[in-house]
Amino acid sequence: VNPRSAGERPFGEDELLAAIRKVLSGSGPGVVIGVGDDAAVVARGGGDGVLTADILVEGVHFDRALSSARDLGFKAIVANVSDVAAMGGSPRYALISLVLSAEIEAPWVMELYGGMLGACEEYGMTLVGGDLSGGPAVVVSVAVTGEVAGNRAVTRSGARSGQRLVVTGTLGGSAGGLALARAPAAKVAEALGSDWGRALLDAHFRPHARVGEGQTLAQLGATAMMDLSDGLALDLSRLCSESVAGARVDLSSVPVAPELRRLAAALEVDPLELALSGGEDYELLAALAPQSVAEASDRLGERFGVPLSDIGEVTDGRGIVAVDAAGGERPLEAKGWDHFAGR
Amino acid sequence: VNPRSAGERPFGEDELLAAIRKVLSGSGPGVVIGVGDDAAVVARGGGDGVLTADILVEGVHFDRALSSARDLGFKAIVANVSDVAAMGGSPRYALISLVLSAEIEAPWVMELYGGMLGACEEYGMTLVGGDLSGGPAVVVSVAVTGEVAGNRAVTRSGARSGQRLVVTGTLGGSAGGLALARAPAAKVAEALGSDWGRALLDAHFRPHARVGEGQTLAQLGATAMMDLSDGLALDLSRLCSESVAGARVDLSSVPVAPELRRLAAALEVDPLELALSGGEDYELLAALAPQSVAEASDRLGERFGVPLSDIGEVTDGRGIVAVDAAGGERPLEAKGWDHFAGR
Repeated sequence: VNPRSAGERPFGEDELLAAIRKVLSGSGPGVVIGVGDDAAVVARGGGDGVLTADILVEGVHFDRALSSARDLGFKAIVANVSDVAAMGGSPRYALISLVLSAEIEAPWVMELYGGMLGACEEYGMTLVGGDLSGGPAVVVSVAVTGEVAGNRAVTRSGARSGQRLVVTGTLGGSAGGLALARAPAAKVAEALGSDWGRALLDAHFRPHARVGEGQTLAQLGATAMMDLSDGLALDLSRLCSESVAGARVDLSSVPVAPELRRLAAALEVDPLELALSGGEDYELLAALAPQSVAEASDRLGERFGVPLSDIGEVTDGRGIVAVDAAGGERPLEAKGWDHFAGR
Repeated sequence: VNPRSAGERPFGEDELLAAIRKVLSGSGPGVVIGVGDDAAVVARGGGDGVLTADILVEGVHFDRALSSARDLGFKAIVANVSDVAAMGGSPRYALISLVLSAEIEAPWVMELYGGMLGACEEYGMTLVGGDLSGGPAVVVSVAVTGEVAGNRAVTRSGARSGQRLVVTGTLGGSAGGLALARAPAAKVAEALGSDWGRALLDAHFRPHARVGEGQTLAQLGATAMMDLSDGLALDLSRLCSESVAGARVDLSSVPVAPELRRLAAALEVDPLELALSGGEDYELLAALAPQSVAEASDRLGERFGVPLSDIGEVTDGRGIVAVDAAGGERPLEAKGWDHFAGR
């Protein structure tokens, strides 16, 4: 126990910054001036710059009782890396702005940075700076810069009628992991003893971004791409809206995470529903020419061990139609994660 | 009055994003892909990249009862531009991540973006993206990227014994403006009717960043530079610490904002104290060779109409000594803004 008077922090901004700087290397490929000055300075390669930012708020995006600081830090970086991946780019540098509430202790912050540094290492990035403030809740605000070959970035707006819609990996695992983490303690304990339970919890707390996969899809001619952070149904509606197109989705081809069948036996969840609107899977959705799908699938399997699923086609119309295994059709409702409404 | 049920937002994330996108141009010099995709894509010039981030938290950095949304947005950008200026760089692109509490209405958000866009226009920047979330308080998280000629960035660590310490503009005006804004309504009303009162409020709510000034000081050989966001006393202690040097500051040469004498007649404030530890002035502190000071002062006056003050010298020792008009010496305490402790 750390004795201190009520409401008084055991450390000031400079002390915490000094502690953070100790865990940050302050250097990395291309870093001219790292953490600790007014701004970071980095060498720039060829190609265009890619810029993205994401903000995670306690009570909205994460619950400190469920997520370790290390996992939270890792995921905060991955969410941004995934956005760079969705453009076909490579992430390079991260800036972290942190709001800490009064009850946060220094070790929690060090663990958070540990997770962020782990993700930076996994994706070949360097953490070069940021900011720090007190506040009413923990907020992790990340900005990531990266690069992409000149004029080769893949937007959301390039899907054309007749193209196939493909999805990397499997869907719904993250939402399943969250449902599991929120389940009664006995169920969580049981699941932790199983491969499927750990896989679902990992899908939620330690997701992966598809950087190499995104670049491969871009090289194979994907004309539209985005990452699935808010759920397939909602994100596909956004891609179609930006592309001024519609879509037909074969529900039987949607790559539902296989562990969700086990979860459905333990908790009342609908695997397909989680796959369609669960969010935070950080898989990629792309529009490809029909003749490129087989090669894309082969390359993703060979290079990354990641499956690619052909889930349907881009259509002329404006609506999104879901086709079930029996051939029945219904409109696919654009629902998923809304950061104001919660799930 | 906008009728709606208690606790229900009149808009969801997509609706608010759509409204924000209407006020954002989505294009600008060098912007390949602007707001609305997974990430922004920008063309990159020569030189090194400059990266910085700042986070403003309601109740810590600003009070919605005192600051208009437009001023808050403007200042959030300026704080970051000032960091780029302190490296001798040019700002180019901004990413904005926003946390909005339940009571915030859409017009407030539009005003905030109006202020940010105004600042972007003033400093030749483009707002290219960001994120949006609900949360317990308003948080404005800004990341700015810019550029600087290769290997010409000016750090905090290059101050050498014998150099002069120079400061742009005047100090303490921002803290004075804040004290005035917090004063009883009658005093604020009286001050608003005076040039000095409006100047102090502007210094706090609509500060300026010294971009051209920073580049001029860099060209004239400044070997260390930083912006004064937390107050001269604290920021100078950081510059000296990074440079492994000490300093002697002539208190009679510190450019106290002249309006503070009028404020001191109305409120109980010490002008010199505000100038030394008030913070948020966003002026630049630099270390220059003695023979360069006169030319730097002339150029800043001619080009920008901004005074440059020689406030003392860099010394060998590790301490910072304040020398008063009578020649008396005392250690200059490194106190100023601490984002955990508040003022």
